[in-house]
Amino acid sequence: MSREKCVLVGQSGGPTAAINASLAGVIAAGILEGARVEGMRYGIQGFLDGNSVRLDEAFVSRVDLELLRNTPASWLGSCRFKLPSPADNDAVYQQLFNRFEEIGASAVLYIGGNDSMDTIAKLAAYGRDNGSDIRFIGVPKTIDNDLVETDHTPGYGSAARFVATTMNELAYDADVYNLKSVTFVEIMGRDAGWLTASSALAFVEPDVVLLPEVPLDEDALMTRLEELLSKKNTVMVGVSEGVRTPDGRLVCEKASSGVGVDEFGHLAMLSGASRYLAALTKQRIGCKTRAVELSTLQRCASYVASRVDLNEAYDVGHAAVEAAFAGETAKMCAIERVSNDPYETRTKLVDVLSVANKVRSVPREWISADGMGVEKELIEYMRPLVGTLPAQLASLD
Amino acid sequence: MSREKCVLVGQSGGPTAAINASLAGVIAAGILEGARVEGMRYGIQGFLDGNSVRLDEAFVSRVDLELLRNTPASWLGSCRFKLPSPADNDAVYQQLFNRFEEIGASAVLYIGGNDSMDTIAKLAAYGRDNGSDIRFIGVPKTIDNDLVETDHTPGYGSAARFVATTMNELAYDADVYNLKSVTFVEIMGRDAGWLTASSALAFVEPDVVLLPEVPLDEDALMTRLEELLSKKNTVMVGVSEGVRTPDGRLVCEKASSGVGVDEFGHLAMLSGASRYLAALTKQRIGCKTRAVELSTLQRCASYVASRVDLNEAYDVGHAAVEAAFAGETAKMCAIERVSNDPYETRTKLVDVLSVANKVRSVPREWISADGMGVEKELIEYMRPLVGTLPAQLASLD
Repeated sequence: MSREKCVLVGQSGGPTAAINASLAGVIAAGILEGARVEGMRYGIQGFLDGNSVRLDEAFVSRVDLELLRNTPASWLGSCRFKLPSPADNDAVYQQLFNRFEEIGASAVLYIGGNDSMDTIAKLAAYGRDNGSDIRFIGVPKTIDNDLVETDHTPGYGSAARFVATTMNELAYDADVYNLKSVTFVEIMGRDAGWLTASSALAFVEPDVVLLPEVPLDEDALMTRLEELLSKKNTVMVGVSEGVRTPDGRLVCEKASSGVGVDEFGHLAMLSGASRYLAALTKQRIGCKTRAVELSTLQRCASYVASRVDLNEAYDVGHAAVEAAFAGETAKMCAIERVSNDPYETRTKLVDVLSVANKVRSVPREWISADGMGVEKELIEYMRPLVGTLPAQLASLD
Repeated sequence: MSREKCVLVGQSGGPTAAINASLAGVIAAGILEGARVEGMRYGIQGFLDGNSVRLDEAFVSRVDLELLRNTPASWLGSCRFKLPSPADNDAVYQQLFNRFEEIGASAVLYIGGNDSMDTIAKLAAYGRDNGSDIRFIGVPKTIDNDLVETDHTPGYGSAARFVATTMNELAYDADVYNLKSVTFVEIMGRDAGWLTASSALAFVEPDVVLLPEVPLDEDALMTRLEELLSKKNTVMVGVSEGVRTPDGRLVCEKASSGVGVDEFGHLAMLSGASRYLAALTKQRIGCKTRAVELSTLQRCASYVASRVDLNEAYDVGHAAVEAAFAGETAKMCAIERVSNDPYETRTKLVDVLSVANKVRSVPREWISADGMGVEKELIEYMRPLVGTLPAQLASLD
């Protein structure tokens, strides 16, 4: 007996500018398939508590879906919930599958990062082992761009567009006075430098980019900054929040643990890699320095969202529903780059187990030999995801 | 004997998204008047050091001028230079007027805030007293919107648009988890609350707005926050960096001076009004809190610039040149609001002496009786300057 078609979808992890575009794609495809579309409120956790919403009734018109596509953050709400293994806690699986049956789900989709792919992998395995015919598909989402098996992740292009645009504007701002200055802009991505690397797109010749993939050499950095300052007034540095010292400690920990208090006076009061490096540079080089933390603005600045990113986020959501109703399960709907120039992608299904709990770093060969810049391959990889930045003059210097 | 027509223009003070639009207006009008257009590099100070640039040669095409109009920060460079009175330092006036003569200036324009208007007033008075026929006109610019004798200032609308848009996006971001939270967003404007007030434009019913015009009542604020949290999950507070305690101290000083260390542990490590209030709220109410400082992003985020602002900035620059060649001097080119709905403005000349060194605060009657919100009059005043925000869904709650 074939049951009523019903897609159940949830959003998980940190918000992005594009996660609602994926949700819009899921809803549109669900309606096209003639399915009921149910949404988990506040992810798996909220769903366990009985929170769900009928999405095909909440979004009936094209206008509603278009607004949803352009609204940042998670419309359904999110959670940070790591599903235990069935061996450790079978009860939570029984509860979840009871809820799936209650709501009549024939397909369960989860939009998120590698934790969410882990959730999908575990649910699919549990379902298979217990005779459930529910299909489980993952929809990728993270500004960190650190999922394997996909060319890039929805959410990354928009965050990268915000970073590149903002870096450019901060450079204009820093350049107005006739004095030497170094600005350190701290960017999200604790384990992978993809988002920090996008700061390089702001400039024809980027100054310095510091990624977590390469240990920070403070002396080499100071030498490089002095060299740049000998040629121009304004030096801009993109710093990953996850940049580490050669002994593997986070630079931001070094700052807040009070190391260097004797050298820099009030440094124990500061936190963050950018603040540490600004204090260090001020002490060593003596020029004006500034630390800017982009904070949560970078993950959901939808007014500077990348068009390509929103379109692809929509497409993976749409394709995930189609895959589920074609009988696929335990898959993630990934993006494959068919061609870079002209830029062309298509969706493809990958085994969700091969994605769960893995981190994709920036390849070392895409980072310059001195570890403080990006190679042409990385620029070419990022540019179509971010799109053309607003047209502005170069500065006079 | 009539000399060759020559406009000399400088930019001063902090950068904005619209100051280059005023420069574009000056250049376009100068070219139309058949004048040579010279620019001071790094303001009066750089000009004294011999730095100038031929603007009518640097910007010859409409495309160049259009790019300049859309480029944030000061293309000419800026300075912070307070011109002394002639009684204290006559030499600097002699130097400046010699430089004016050398370059052949028939009109000197200065784009800036009330310090710049003070500069124009002093130069005009000195010129008049010493038989110079050079005309001096001020062009208003400040994100703080605190100049008197003008309905508003170029630069304000764009900064306010950034603040309102960002406030909206931060609210979406804060609302994704199913928990109670208060986010304090710290906004520029040490003496006047105009820019902080624009955070209210993000919402149909804004939560809390704290301006420097009204002393902060911490107990009343906590009561208000608890009341809001009883009705919804996510509370957003716009906080001016200049908000003060009833005894007149800056709240951010209170934070960094270490007051409250015993109560809040590490509070002495923090700085800024938003961080202080986030720590206070966490301690008193116990909910999740977050402090966001918009930092320099708010003053030159040109990608979210207000169209009205850029147009008006251009217009006051253009009109200032026309006024100078019509024989006016010691004036500022102000904006007069002819009608609010439909929104219509025109430029007008005001006595620059009546503007210099004065600060226009938000009228008390435009702030709600409890001092923590804005009245309808203020919303109606701000809305046309900021324009329509990007269309997005309201959140589910």
